[in-house]
Amino acid sequence: MSKYLVFGHKNPDTDTIASAIAMSFFLERQGYDAEPVALGTPNEETEFALNYFNVEAPRVVTTVANEVEHVALVDHNEPQQSVDDLADVTVDYVIDHHRIAGFETAQPLYYRAEPIGCTATVLLKMFKEHDYDIPKSIAGLMLSAIISDTLLFKSPTCTNQDESAARELAKIAEVDLEKYGLELLKAGTNLSTKTIDELLTLDAKSFDMNGRKVRIAQVNAIGFEEMQAQKAELLTAMDASGYDLFVLIVTDILESNSFGLVSGDDFTQVEAAFGTTVIDNELLLPGVVSRKKQVVPQLTAAYEK
Amino acid sequence: MSKYLVFGHKNPDTDTIASAIAMSFFLERQGYDAEPVALGTPNEETEFALNYFNVEAPRVVTTVANEVEHVALVDHNEPQQSVDDLADVTVDYVIDHHRIAGFETAQPLYYRAEPIGCTATVLLKMFKEHDYDIPKSIAGLMLSAIISDTLLFKSPTCTNQDESAARELAKIAEVDLEKYGLELLKAGTNLSTKTIDELLTLDAKSFDMNGRKVRIAQVNAIGFEEMQAQKAELLTAMDASGYDLFVLIVTDILESNSFGLVSGDDFTQVEAAFGTTVIDNELLLPGVVSRKKQVVPQLTAAYEK
Repeated sequence: MSKYLVFGHKNPDTDTIASAIAMSFFLERQGYDAEPVALGTPNEETEFALNYFNVEAPRVVTTVANEVEHVALVDHNEPQQSVDDLADVTVDYVIDHHRIAGFETAQPLYYRAEPIGCTATVLLKMFKEHDYDIPKSIAGLMLSAIISDTLLFKSPTCTNQDESAARELAKIAEVDLEKYGLELLKAGTNLSTKTIDELLTLDAKSFDMNGRKVRIAQVNAIGFEEMQAQKAELLTAMDASGYDLFVLIVTDILESNSFGLVSGDDFTQVEAAFGTTVIDNELLLPGVVSRKKQVVPQLTAAYEK
Repeated sequence: MSKYLVFGHKNPDTDTIASAIAMSFFLERQGYDAEPVALGTPNEETEFALNYFNVEAPRVVTTVANEVEHVALVDHNEPQQSVDDLADVTVDYVIDHHRIAGFETAQPLYYRAEPIGCTATVLLKMFKEHDYDIPKSIAGLMLSAIISDTLLFKSPTCTNQDESAARELAKIAEVDLEKYGLELLKAGTNLSTKTIDELLTLDAKSFDMNGRKVRIAQVNAIGFEEMQAQKAELLTAMDASGYDLFVLIVTDILESNSFGLVSGDDFTQVEAAFGTTVIDNELLLPGVVSRKKQVVPQLTAAYEK
């Protein structure tokens, strides 16, 4: 068997990087040659976790078929989120926690997805099923993935399984879960070093909603002041982007609230989705932390009315 | 949570029926209301297993959205093999051992597939991971599924995992694996009661191979005499079917050999695929027992030359 490259989605987040490293270790434990790689450089939150547990960042690649015939995907399956030459390799493994869309194989494969908060939680089950010990550093990264994806268990995507997996991993990683968790999340809120363009693309996804082009970006923050100070520049860039609706969700990770900055033509739909009024392009979103569960479905429904 | 219907593919085989029953039991153990159903009546092999372990055949349905909102699929994922109104329900679970093609969801789900011989082997792992005891009758059906899908471990699709799962299930089911296995396989070779049309449709799959319409049917037998006696009628029906190539694979389950009956225009590709000559529409296929591994890939490659 030739070597596996193991990777997550483009614009990698902590779960994508951590799960690539953990899955690569899992495959090596099964006797395969495997290397975690990434489709982009780690963000500051992920960098914090890598430094904390003294793990090197995975090598960044833009293609894989020039190196290997077989790959393992983590934290994604949709081709447009994956490596550009995915069609030229064989996917033997997928470990994920998203919907399945546009994913096809010619051969049977190992596919393991669960509707839970984090890919690393699925990976922890696999390690336990095989009685594989998890090294301290990899447990630390998997823990970081769960903290990141669930905003320290505050996201509605979080399940009891994610929380108990995190507590188990924190023991192996020998860290204080709450203390480390807040430090990790804060590391991802260092917005002062980011350009306007970076803030709007760091974690942005595009959607087709009833024929309208919608883009929803999200950034984590501590308080809203820093982002509100840049409101004018942000709106100028959002207006210039050409979407029918561009929503920037700024999530306060300590208070578990968000506010939205809105640009484009479709304010009616936004107001219908959240039952509130857009004032000066701003929108209060109390209790909202998850784009996947608390923004996309509500907006989609509003467009379909 | 409303009720789940659990079902396998159209033209149900023993794995599809047994895994629907086992998965339904699994979901009930998890506290859900679940019922196994089938997209067709069980074949004679499956009937033998159901009678042996005193389990009622699942109710046959042609639609599901009129009954439930949520379903669990076993032993398949491709929509054309599934219930006609699959698009009108939400798939929350898939337990499978095939390639993934044309399958899409709007929401995250539990998807568990492995590249092994039988869905029931995957299900046994799930039962063990949850420490759920398996009732004797369900263990017997799961064992039957593995025997059926692997032709008592002789198929190249069989893995060590399937064989050890079968041995474990045989203990729970309190049967002599080899003795019961042969009886079960023999029950599926009762061809004398079948019409020509039934023989050609019981387990037939269509393929597009480089733009040519190819159909490959397979029947299990003991010896080839019974089928060879009906050669003329079989060929007449195969000729009338309008495929560019129609191959009937007759597999001797005791000798692990097959012979092929060939109709249509594309004999060149058949001869290239198997490195042998078609004489009087017949083809010897020594050692061939698996359509998935020993017929389809070879024919596909021959068409692409």
